[in-house]
Amino acid sequence: MTEYFEDYEIGAIRTSHGRTITEADIVLHAGQTGDFYPHHMDKEFCQSQPFGQRIAHGTLVLSVGVGMLAGEINDVAMSYGYDNIRFLRPVFIGDTITATASIAGTREYSKDPERYGLVDEKLEVTKQTGETALVLTHIYLVEKKPK
Amino acid sequence: MTEYFEDYEIGAIRTSHGRTITEADIVLHAGQTGDFYPHHMDKEFCQSQPFGQRIAHGTLVLSVGVGMLAGEINDVAMSYGYDNIRFLRPVFIGDTITATASIAGTREYSKDPERYGLVDEKLEVTKQTGETALVLTHIYLVEKKPK
Amino acid sequence: MTEYFEDYEIGAIRTSHGRTITEADIVLHAGQTGDFYPHHMDKEFCQSQPFGQRIAHGTLVLSVGVGMLAGEINDVAMSYGYDNIRFLRPVFIGDTITATASIAGTREYSKDPERYGLVDEKLEVTKQTGETALVLTHIYLVEKKPK
Amino acid sequence: MTEYFEDYEIGAIRTSHGRTITEADIVLHAGQTGDFYPHHMDKEFCQSQPFGQRIAHGTLVLSVGVGMLAGEINDVAMSYGYDNIRFLRPVFIGDTITATASIAGTREYSKDPERYGLVDEKLEVTKQTGETALVLTHIYLVEKKPK
Amino acid sequence: MTEYFEDYEIGAIRTSHGRTITEADIVLHAGQTGDFYPHHMDKEFCQSQPFGQRIAHGTLVLSVGVGMLAGEINDVAMSYGYDNIRFLRPVFIGDTITATASIAGTREYSKDPERYGLVDEKLEVTKQTGETALVLTHIYLVEKKPK
Amino acid sequence: MTEYFEDYEIGAIRTSHGRTITEADIVLHAGQTGDFYPHHMDKEFCQSQPFGQRIAHGTLVLSVGVGMLAGEINDVAMSYGYDNIRFLRPVFIGDTITATASIAGTREYSKDPERYGLVDEKLEVTKQTGETALVLTHIYLVEKKPK
Repeated sequence: MTEYFEDYEIGAIRTSHGRTITEADIVLHAGQTGDFYPHHMDKEFCQSQPFGQRIAHGTLVLSVGVGMLAGEINDVAMSYGYDNIRFLRPVFIGDTITATASIAGTREYSKDPERYGLVDEKLEVTKQTGETALVLTHIYLVEKKPK
Repeated sequence: MTEYFEDYEIGAIRTSHGRTITEADIVLHAGQTGDFYPHHMDKEFCQSQPFGQRIAHGTLVLSVGVGMLAGEINDVAMSYGYDNIRFLRPVFIGDTITATASIAGTREYSKDPERYGLVDEKLEVTKQTGETALVLTHIYLVEKKPK
Repeated sequence: MTEYFEDYEIGAIRTSHGRTITEADIVLHAGQTGDFYPHHMDKEFCQSQPFGQRIAHGTLVLSVGVGMLAGEINDVAMSYGYDNIRFLRPVFIGDTITATASIAGTREYSKDPERYGLVDEKLEVTKQTGETALVLTHIYLVEKKPK
Repeated sequence: MTEYFEDYEIGAIRTSHGRTITEADIVLHAGQTGDFYPHHMDKEFCQSQPFGQRIAHGTLVLSVGVGMLAGEINDVAMSYGYDNIRFLRPVFIGDTITATASIAGTREYSKDPERYGLVDEKLEVTKQTGETALVLTHIYLVEKKPK
Repeated sequence: MTEYFEDYEIGAIRTSHGRTITEADIVLHAGQTGDFYPHHMDKEFCQSQPFGQRIAHGTLVLSVGVGMLAGEINDVAMSYGYDNIRFLRPVFIGDTITATASIAGTREYSKDPERYGLVDEKLEVTKQTGETALVLTHIYLVEKKPK
Repeated sequence: MTEYFEDYEIGAIRTSHGRTITEADIVLHAGQTGDFYPHHMDKEFCQSQPFGQRIAHGTLVLSVGVGMLAGEINDVAMSYGYDNIRFLRPVFIGDTITATASIAGTREYSKDPERYGLVDEKLEVTKQTGETALVLTHIYLVEKKPK
């Protein structure tokens, strides 16, 4: 797929399948990151906490949320960064999350405005309850159409 | 550990051990996120690309970078979000990364200024070459000292 | 172990231990294969489907079924292929499967009949309920006795 | 996606991205299946064998090959089984495989010809060398168009 | 951290966070070790056994117990071995374990008494019930203070 | 298999297949145990150390060494503990290890001498170089023959 900066349409939406976050996902994410905080790994401790149960790592929800929408590849875009990542509600073992992305805006890329522009895609991870777990803005550096 | 909002000192620094990002880490991260893009998984394809080799997922570098500094727990702080995540240079298989965090500033938390404040910690992931791979600002919501 | 083509006895049976297929197995298999279809990964979606719950990937049941009988090695045999793989019933999280293999027949190997023959082993994967989940024929290329 | 039995076109082709089979993939597949045969796990042993190096499990190549083409879901089709799986050449650590599937034929489903038909899709896994590692026929049970 | 042989104090105690041993941990440990005994993997079999459920591998409890206390690194100490490992009670899926280590004694190292001494640290893994699952003595070879 | 206390023969030997310890094994073991010490995970740091490269966790070599000999199950024996675990030489990435176990002795079990005895099995893990990496004594609690 080749979608140039000028091709992006504000409001265009992509939605992922759902995915249930399992105890295994949390165990694997602790193992990958080295974050074995009891909030994620200790059922007993968590029973004494406000949420009453283990919660998924923020970086797990973020990584899966972004990964769920890794669909067709745009040959002329690359990931530039993320802004405004906010963890709005915890994801528990057994919650099913879905990711939705919508093109929120386009901007000039001041370092090289001839060749590139920036595209802001707003990503939202929701739970089966309808609640939003995570929001972020994914920024893409996208080539402009060759002149 | 209990470190209240008022206890944070601008400029205080934490540094992680080093960690070599392996082919296994990338395989596991693809497996966790479902992102099997050829930039991460296809050695042949990558040889035709500018970097010439497979690159780690941005969310892998981010998750490990944050996890490497998951040290002692502050009982009165929680992760609020991240800002200004920028992928400055790719991390290749065999690169060794280190994370450094420094307290960059403190701010009022307008929704509940009596009880909480926001602390901005700047996190930087560097490679063994001295280059910076990733920067981000980790925002903590921290309790103020009980009056 | 050295068991030549002529040594195989029709009807000889091998049976595995049992193994419970866990949610972790499905998560790991999705991660290895990249198949994150909601039939395997989305508890909510599955509740709206005929089976009402997540089902194991066919290739997971196949891989574990074959692996469970990877016992003693026959130095003069190699895996040639599989025929007639049929998924008869779904395997759910928590099901315990057992694999049974029986020698079903021997055949000439037309490409090199002097040195090799083909042995058909029928493999059946059953569930704790007694139901059959999977059948297949595992074909081995086996050396004939040196003359 | 909804593609009925009558919609399938003989010769229609799908091709996957490439994926490099890593040492980590083999370690993970051994761990999932319990097949720790030295042909897959023992570098020293393999140096004394004809191929001179470790080879991927057949079920790994099969599972990844099938998984690589798990793209859009057809709501009215389900996996019925596989036929004629043949391991033509070994896959070594570092080989990059690609899967190609083409619709090879359609057949009546004798058990319920009113509602379903069978579709044969031929799947081929090739290596970066151009050699074929694996072939199989994937059989789908597909609903006929409602009348 | 640099703690010489002479610095160790008998009775000094370290305690880990808690960690819940999950089904995923057992699946991963079977995969790493190749030990797929039905005592760990077969729910049905275990229902017929005295404990009535699957139990964690001894080496899993040992590895996690030791790992949970892998905190700050002592630059002048290295792991010499373990003694008196005893599996006192089984760890079940869902049990939460905590590790406690206390310096039990110091001894001369007869092979090189000028430069090294041996430190015995007693490690105990307890369950949320208060019961002890595992005890062992971890022996460290520690440098003596430079003279 | 049923092998009573009286059936054990001093000197009886079991030998495993070989297994190459991979970078992936170390990554997975760090992930399971939470031990991310730079001796195992940081290639750059290790280059400044006496061994010059990353070394496998002691508990990894131990767990795999024991697991490699988890063959046929003796219905009347259970693992009682380990003694005299000594890490004699480091295992590096790419080393191939083999485990050998020999029955070293039998002893009375003082707590219940009528029904049980203790069997000491000496386990040795060797590298492809012929060097010994690890030794330990595995103690089994074994039923005596019914009278």
